[in-house]
Amino acid sequence: MTIPVDIAALGARAAGMIEELGRISSTPDHLTRFFLTPEHRQAADHVARWMAAAGLTVSEDALGTVRGHWHPAGPEAPRLLIGSHIDTVANAGKYDGTLGVVLGILAVEAVQKAGLTPPYGIDVLAFGDEEGTRFPTTLSSSAACAGVFQPASLGGLDSDGVSLAEALVAYGKDPAAIAAAAYDPSRVIAYVEAHIEQGPVLEAEAEPLGVVTAIAGASRLSITVTGEAGHAGTVPMRMRRDALLGAAEMALAVERIARADRHGMVATVGRMHVEPGSVNVIPSRVVFTVDLRSGSDSSRREALTRFEREAHRIADDRHLGVVISAFHEVATVPCYRDLQLRLRNAVADLGHRAPELASGAGHDGQAMSQLCPVGMLFVRCKGGISHNPAEYASPEDMGMAAAALIRFIERFQLPQRDGGTSGAQT
Amino acid sequence: MTIPVDIAALGARAAGMIEELGRISSTPDHLTRFFLTPEHRQAADHVARWMAAAGLTVSEDALGTVRGHWHPAGPEAPRLLIGSHIDTVANAGKYDGTLGVVLGILAVEAVQKAGLTPPYGIDVLAFGDEEGTRFPTTLSSSAACAGVFQPASLGGLDSDGVSLAEALVAYGKDPAAIAAAAYDPSRVIAYVEAHIEQGPVLEAEAEPLGVVTAIAGASRLSITVTGEAGHAGTVPMRMRRDALLGAAEMALAVERIARADRHGMVATVGRMHVEPGSVNVIPSRVVFTVDLRSGSDSSRREALTRFEREAHRIADDRHLGVVISAFHEVATVPCYRDLQLRLRNAVADLGHRAPELASGAGHDGQAMSQLCPVGMLFVRCKGGISHNPAEYASPEDMGMAAAALIRFIERFQLPQRDGGTSGAQT
Repeated sequence: MTIPVDIAALGARAAGMIEELGRISSTPDHLTRFFLTPEHRQAADHVARWMAAAGLTVSEDALGTVRGHWHPAGPEAPRLLIGSHIDTVANAGKYDGTLGVVLGILAVEAVQKAGLTPPYGIDVLAFGDEEGTRFPTTLSSSAACAGVFQPASLGGLDSDGVSLAEALVAYGKDPAAIAAAAYDPSRVIAYVEAHIEQGPVLEAEAEPLGVVTAIAGASRLSITVTGEAGHAGTVPMRMRRDALLGAAEMALAVERIARADRHGMVATVGRMHVEPGSVNVIPSRVVFTVDLRSGSDSSRREALTRFEREAHRIADDRHLGVVISAFHEVATVPCYRDLQLRLRNAVADLGHRAPELASGAGHDGQAMSQLCPVGMLFVRCKGGISHNPAEYASPEDMGMAAAALIRFIERFQLPQRDGGTSGAQT
Repeated sequence: MTIPVDIAALGARAAGMIEELGRISSTPDHLTRFFLTPEHRQAADHVARWMAAAGLTVSEDALGTVRGHWHPAGPEAPRLLIGSHIDTVANAGKYDGTLGVVLGILAVEAVQKAGLTPPYGIDVLAFGDEEGTRFPTTLSSSAACAGVFQPASLGGLDSDGVSLAEALVAYGKDPAAIAAAAYDPSRVIAYVEAHIEQGPVLEAEAEPLGVVTAIAGASRLSITVTGEAGHAGTVPMRMRRDALLGAAEMALAVERIARADRHGMVATVGRMHVEPGSVNVIPSRVVFTVDLRSGSDSSRREALTRFEREAHRIADDRHLGVVISAFHEVATVPCYRDLQLRLRNAVADLGHRAPELASGAGHDGQAMSQLCPVGMLFVRCKGGISHNPAEYASPEDMGMAAAALIRFIERFQLPQRDGGTSGAQT
């Protein structure tokens, strides 16, 4: 069968739900919704009502993840997980996270109403800690579902000195129950998430949807360049050891390395602090950061090695000191090839080509990949803008994404019915 | 005659005097002596006692400049002015300024004791406002002597909200008397100043003394580069408008332009402020400064034009905006050619070659050049370090500088005696 989809109607519903949840904020003029706050509680309750109205059975785990269950083959059957998060950064956009939860609910409601009875169940998940804006750790709620929650993170404090453990208790949760929140890997088929792209590629390609090949691994470096301060008027150019000029060359080297890469590598010098920072003093010390991401870990590691070599060559040429330290490192999570194909076919059914792209941003899929295969669908967003009130996805694109998820679910069970490859083996 | 000079003894005296004055500070652990403060008063009184002990008649003008007069040909005879300043920056070195006053006193004392009776007088001047660390304006005391004091600067406030006019009154001065502090240009022969180099050239050339060709003109620019913020992980390299990378290229262009110049141009990017300044956000706006100095105004102006062209080309290539604004501009003050020759000959008499060099730093000579010909002698300082407690000139070098000034004064009158070119016409 082919479930009839009304893209405009789905888009209008998605847009309405996005608006509703977007009004739940700790600040009146902006959208700010942190993990385990009263606003998180309010949003979780709102999502639970949506899930119930869509015919799902609702539960909530020890980290506050709202779970909407549809188990046509009984509670013991394997499950497909569809989800995203409902926490936000400060002064956020309404779409980041929320959209994936909304689309999951709309898609499951549609397949359920169409009378499908797949041999597996679907859980729609609304995680509460993806942005990592309140506590030092992040992805704690998806990590709990994946069974990789780190108990040490319970001691992490927010800016008011409240620990994650205390905040959980205040939220009505029992930290001792976290282990029980973990899914049994043998009973989970896959985790699929729809999310706004947060980048400009789909807009540039004039495509509403894209299939994510990998959640890019990232390295963050802090580079300290040391030279010698001196009077801007009295030290001849050839006698200078100017830390800023060395740092400028290194920043351009970072760019060159990323541009030369063939795996869509991106590299950013986001911070640069110059000392002493006087108009008439030659800079003696510059500290800057490099954020380097790639869908290929080997390509990222190669780039890091190349940057290190370049930075030392530049420092040597300019008689500067340089110290490079890595302060953050996350490996690439490749999206499961079969899920990519299935998502692309679902989009193709709707007449679109779904370009492949790596996700430069982090997602709950990074934690979920330790539980099961992960697939991601990106939805075009205006100007690639995210983490900003100007964040926007059109109702048409959201409707198209809901329809693609419906097609994905619908086709996901077909091999099973035909006696072919089971969904559980994708 | 040739006045016998004991370089070691002169150096020891200079070093002792430098130490004495270096103890007069508003902060116990560092040397800080601002214009018109109790410490300025104390230092001025100390200098006045030195002058009196050296046989000079002492007066003080309406801006607190201490003047030690030696007028063997009577008060109406033309005068040679020798001086420097006794104010300091915060956390200063002991030599900057003070050395020139000390050497002036030692030299005049020596020629006087040797029985010279030149047809002109000598005034040793100890200015109080060269560093410009207290009020918005600078060189106000030498400007008063030169007759170019700007009355508008009396309203300028220090960080406590005290105006220059109020500070002068509190110092016991009458602002209405400032005009009377101006020398009559027809009665002044020249202004000569000895000063530490504040740069590393003499040390690198292994010479104790250098002759200044010009006090370099300077331009200061503020450059604002605007691009577009974006997620460090999601915006492909080719779609970025990264303000920091544009600024980095511009900073390197500044360096390239200065290095290509043949007039000893120096250019410095001393400040760079990056917005938003997050490790994972592409910089949207960078503001940086350029300080550009050259002994040739035409060369400086050419460099500015070239930089402006380069900056716009870089901005165009990267689809960035750029706004360049000049916020400071001082023309070059060439040192008087005849005074340069006379100073070099004086140093040559002592067996040294006195390399020529431009002064990248500002000096009271900039104001005095509006009154009369200006000459400057540089004294080697350790590591080129200045405006820093580590500032140091050796007693030997200071003794050599005192001796050079003695030779300069001694030979300055010779043409007059021989009936040749008079000193007043140099």
